Amino acid sequence: MADSNALPLVLLAEQFAKLPGIGMKSAQRLAYHVMSMTDSEAQAFADAIIHAHKTVHTCKMCQNLTDKELCPICANESREHSLICVVETPKDITAFERTKEYNGVYHVLHGLISPIDGITPDKLKIKELLARIQQGGINEVIMATNPTVEGEATAMYISKLLKPLDIKVTRLAFGLPIGGSLEYADEITLFKALENRNEI
Amino acid sequence: MADSNALPLVLLAEQFAKLPGIGMKSAQRLAYHVMSMTDSEAQAFADAIIHAHKTVHTCKMCQNLTDKELCPICANESREHSLICVVETPKDITAFERTKEYNGVYHVLHGLISPIDGITPDKLKIKELLARIQQGGINEVIMATNPTVEGEATAMYISKLLKPLDIKVTRLAFGLPIGGSLEYADEITLFKALENRNEI
Repeated sequence: MADSNALPLVLLAEQFAKLPGIGMKSAQRLAYHVMSMTDSEAQAFADAIIHAHKTVHTCKMCQNLTDKELCPICANESREHSLICVVETPKDITAFERTKEYNGVYHVLHGLISPIDGITPDKLKIKELLARIQQGGINEVIMATNPTVEGEATAMYISKLLKPLDIKVTRLAFGLPIGGSLEYADEITLFKALENRNEI
Repeated sequence: MADSNALPLVLLAEQFAKLPGIGMKSAQRLAYHVMSMTDSEAQAFADAIIHAHKTVHTCKMCQNLTDKELCPICANESREHSLICVVETPKDITAFERTKEYNGVYHVLHGLISPIDGITPDKLKIKELLARIQQGGINEVIMATNPTVEGEATAMYISKLLKPLDIKVTRLAFGLPIGGSLEYADEITLFKALENRNEI
């Protein structure tokens, strides 16, 4: 590419290629697209990166990303502050909020325990969760980490830490996804669906 | 998303979602990734956008993108300047350069004739191509637009314009892709492969 194209374009494509899920070919396509923007569009794009990066930080209560001191959920008086849903990333909060059914608050761990990748419990926002619970007023903690090895391990680790505090700790239910088909369900999901069967 | 996340993040995700091939979910993921960058990484990303957008323009000879007056290919004395390969986009040049077999120069149309989309011949760099040929010294023009309706129409349109100038105009060969399988070839490709069969 360096042979036939301008160097600044190559450098821009390399920046795009650093983003997750974007390979060198897509990165080139995106770089060419930037060339077709107007001056003000390109400026707005660059400004949005800098502005978001500068002003967004973690909520001092739940560790969600926010540009205020408290995120809108923690600042919302009408939410149930005695119910904490523990998630891996801020994206997971978006997923729960889409259901419009959950009215508690959240706690973002910013990762899962994974010793292989060097992610030990002290690298996650677990002590912030404990501090929050020790302040009192919490009835239930829902462990809503992903149903993966790391997600399970993290849920187990935290639930053991919370046992002595005499807090109700729950875990998301696992089973068949709604609209899914038995035929395409993997064995572990099917086993979980069997194991957690309910009387009707 | 606006409910649970910071506004600057939403704005950044909207910027990413304007890029081709990036939906709202991917855009959110990319915006979150920017949050995990260091200050200098985020600055480098934003700078690359502005720098590429400001310094890159079209080559005054072949309309390829470049940050110089002439692109490296037009400025290269060892290339065959009497042979012009006409392509739709700068990306196509990258594809030809990868073959390492072509030693002529290029001309980028920056689009294909498509009256439905309002792209008439005057919106493409066709007059620049004609001006270039009228300056003399050109032996052959290869029409290397895509084998689509618009690509064919554009190739035909330009070849008719060049007829009176007594220039050899050629078109890329169409047939089976190398490494492809007869079984998976579409009918038109197979028809082209039959029609253009060569004696061995």
